[in-house]
Amino acid sequence: MKKWIATTLALALTAASLAGCTSGSNTVSSQNAVNADKMSQTQTVKAPKYVFLFIGDGMSYPQIQSTSDYLGALKDEDYWQAEPSLDDNQGAKLDGPEYLNFMNFEAAGSAVTYDSNSFCPDSASTATSISTGHKTYSGTINMDETGTTAYETIAEQLKAQKNWEIGIISSVNLNHATPAAFYAHQASRNNYYEIGQELIASDFDYFAGGGLLSPTGKEEDQANLYDLAKEAGYTVAMTHEEAEAVGADTEKAILVDENLADGDAMAYELDRTEEMWSLADYVEKGIEVLDNDNGFFMMCEGGKIDWACHANDAASSIHDTMALADAVQVAMDFAKDHADETLILVTGDHETGGLTIGFAGTDYDTYLNLLESQKISFAKFDSDYVAKYKENKTSFDEVMADVTELFGLKTSGEEGDKLVLTDYELGLLKTAYEKSINEKDTGMDEQQEYVLYGTYEPLTVTITHIINNKSGVSFTSYSHTGLPVAVLAQGVGSDVFNGYYDNTDIYNKLADMLSIA
Amino acid sequence: MKKWIATTLALALTAASLAGCTSGSNTVSSQNAVNADKMSQTQTVKAPKYVFLFIGDGMSYPQIQSTSDYLGALKDEDYWQAEPSLDDNQGAKLDGPEYLNFMNFEAAGSAVTYDSNSFCPDSASTATSISTGHKTYSGTINMDETGTTAYETIAEQLKAQKNWEIGIISSVNLNHATPAAFYAHQASRNNYYEIGQELIASDFDYFAGGGLLSPTGKEEDQANLYDLAKEAGYTVAMTHEEAEAVGADTEKAILVDENLADGDAMAYELDRTEEMWSLADYVEKGIEVLDNDNGFFMMCEGGKIDWACHANDAASSIHDTMALADAVQVAMDFAKDHADETLILVTGDHETGGLTIGFAGTDYDTYLNLLESQKISFAKFDSDYVAKYKENKTSFDEVMADVTELFGLKTSGEEGDKLVLTDYELGLLKTAYEKSINEKDTGMDEQQEYVLYGTYEPLTVTITHIINNKSGVSFTSYSHTGLPVAVLAQGVGSDVFNGYYDNTDIYNKLADMLSIA
Repeated sequence: MKKWIATTLALALTAASLAGCTSGSNTVSSQNAVNADKMSQTQTVKAPKYVFLFIGDGMSYPQIQSTSDYLGALKDEDYWQAEPSLDDNQGAKLDGPEYLNFMNFEAAGSAVTYDSNSFCPDSASTATSISTGHKTYSGTINMDETGTTAYETIAEQLKAQKNWEIGIISSVNLNHATPAAFYAHQASRNNYYEIGQELIASDFDYFAGGGLLSPTGKEEDQANLYDLAKEAGYTVAMTHEEAEAVGADTEKAILVDENLADGDAMAYELDRTEEMWSLADYVEKGIEVLDNDNGFFMMCEGGKIDWACHANDAASSIHDTMALADAVQVAMDFAKDHADETLILVTGDHETGGLTIGFAGTDYDTYLNLLESQKISFAKFDSDYVAKYKENKTSFDEVMADVTELFGLKTSGEEGDKLVLTDYELGLLKTAYEKSINEKDTGMDEQQEYVLYGTYEPLTVTITHIINNKSGVSFTSYSHTGLPVAVLAQGVGSDVFNGYYDNTDIYNKLADMLSIA
Repeated sequence: MKKWIATTLALALTAASLAGCTSGSNTVSSQNAVNADKMSQTQTVKAPKYVFLFIGDGMSYPQIQSTSDYLGALKDEDYWQAEPSLDDNQGAKLDGPEYLNFMNFEAAGSAVTYDSNSFCPDSASTATSISTGHKTYSGTINMDETGTTAYETIAEQLKAQKNWEIGIISSVNLNHATPAAFYAHQASRNNYYEIGQELIASDFDYFAGGGLLSPTGKEEDQANLYDLAKEAGYTVAMTHEEAEAVGADTEKAILVDENLADGDAMAYELDRTEEMWSLADYVEKGIEVLDNDNGFFMMCEGGKIDWACHANDAASSIHDTMALADAVQVAMDFAKDHADETLILVTGDHETGGLTIGFAGTDYDTYLNLLESQKISFAKFDSDYVAKYKENKTSFDEVMADVTELFGLKTSGEEGDKLVLTDYELGLLKTAYEKSINEKDTGMDEQQEYVLYGTYEPLTVTITHIINNKSGVSFTSYSHTGLPVAVLAQGVGSDVFNGYYDNTDIYNKLADMLSIA
């Protein structure tokens, strides 16, 4: 299917149609337990009947704004030719960012993400907070800190208490932490098989995206999860053809992407070709399956923003954030026809990588347009190129030829070509090459080497570090960080998501609005 | 005066009192020029009569959240003793952050900060956007990109059109970019003398904080600005005694802090002693001077958050953010008695330093409590210690003794003491010492050395980098970055500041609400 980018233009129409959502027929009685005593009379508040929750894993303000700035930069050719800088104001004016569709949502809050372990929490605990309103330890899915009490999720509650249909979509594995947090209850996120069993037992209506991890268990000796799903009545689609056949009359379905990439996840958006399904396609198909008169809840995770940022791959993070915006656009298009019944939420679970739009080496300048020269994700470069380099002990010069083609970085070029490596950068790259391809000792202290490479392929992470830094962006970590995440909301009830609050309040606000408990 | 920290407790009362502000007597007709045609009838909307605008220079989400997390960490002794980590969930639970007073404000939006030069803008252009609603080049104050057209500021408009009293406070120089953007119009922020002349000509009622730069001009041959101010009718107070004497019956006043520190700015909060005035004290005095029946506008800048982050000094950034929260508390206390007439805005102009709560070397862990061991700002260490080291060629061991006392870092200690330097860190420190004290070549590539030290004192910036990283925080730049800033709002009209919008809209929303043009 065709790639397309959600922009402000598309939003102009939808924002207008959603803006008029304050009156309508779909009202419910709000009887919040906490406030019940204080209320002398029952208040009637609007509640949505279709709820979309988009979670960009690892997506906080830096991921959103860098994508927005990158799209603005690409359209601003005059500016890059004139190159105005602080020392020379006689250039063209910067046009500024291109707002992503969800940046224009009517409500925008911030959610604090710490968990019971750390200010830098993981996806299991943060998704638990969003899904159940409880804090827990990193690595735990919908259980308390002792691993003994299970928490019911908002998706389970909506199904049980309101008979809504439920859809769960993720660009990574369907039994990965974030999607799991809407249907599973496990002391450890690594219990993939057990999570898969809970997926099937959930009886949710639609699952789509990456493949199940450990489908036959840790020892590979258990009944295959896909077989169990079929036995339980699920239509399991593993090809485009099978996925196309799923529709409104399908009772419940599991769609596994035909083109699984690294870690059995969907491909990075940067690596996706025309014929491959996008996250947006799975949202579109999901609406087809879920649409019904009672209502539905759809959680859609852009899971590879996180994976890209772990690896400090800014270009891949940007393209997967664009893919998430495209998926959001499908919900916005749906909302045009259900303006007074739809709520769309877009948030992140935590920030990943400590991404900054700015870098010491470029001071006040950024050259975000340079990120366009990266044509491949770090992961695909690892699997399709570096693996062969290792096998063949490919020479540095041959490797550099690929690096020039795939990332734009070059050893020589015209004066002023910002993609030409400095001697220092070339040195970093050669050291990383020797470490990756020839397993040569870098001579560095262990602490220094870890900060430089993390647990990633030294050659690849050095390439992305260099192109990031030349573009004027940088990372400080290979893990998650403590920045709050944005909560963008559009449609019925969106205004309650304004403010600066704890991530557990995302659940609390939703549960209150939807009168579930 | 006594130091105090603004916390959630103080807010609990005020939030409640401000929350009930939706009805009252102070209404005005909103006749926005742009919307006038579309409105079939004149709408009556609430407008505040007392407006406080707090600008944390360089303060975005990382500066706010790191301060909040630090305060939470300090109170959480159980947690640090148990040290739960991702690998061991059998510890105490993290209590989480301590919300700063303004984090609990009823409205919270995000403002995009790019200017006509860059996605990493400067304080002159961003303050121009906030103050006038226009984008311009970095370095320019309230003029267009050609440096020929001047823009009227919101403070000037409120004085001219509504006869409000105006107060401008800054912890840095009163003719520095941010305060200047409320009264001056200059193609270059470096025209300090001309900005000072405009300060006097503004006829604003109250200026307080750091001293004027270039009070006798670039060539030091012009009439002294303080003398000119007195001739123009200003009471100029240069001591605590003179400042105390300023009050409600003072027509107009300029208060210069008695204890000027680096760059003739107020001292860093970390270096402030009991007897020195705080930013909060100047807000309190300002209210005394400005309070009148017409209304007033007060801009108060926490300018040294930016200076601290430029130097990658996380502890100083945190303490100056606390000082800003303390200053905000004074406005909140005022609002208790003027609940239906007051609007308090807290925002930043841009992010500085690329601060992240998280660092590759500490992965998912943070040890923010370690920042408590830093007892001095980088600037005071430079002036009071490093200057002498250079003069006396002080030995590394003697320097280390001071470093241990002032920053907690040590060469040996008990097992598990997180402040003990690793061999790698000790190596970094020794290289920086040799560069700073003995001007020895580091042997590094220029690009590498710039990323390590910027233009800062190598010894000092290496010390703060090490203590930052041990605490689990990091910086990527010595300049500003492109992260959006938070806009927190409380009181009359606050809800219009929800959303994700351009920084020029801060002016537009205020001007619309206050019916000025």
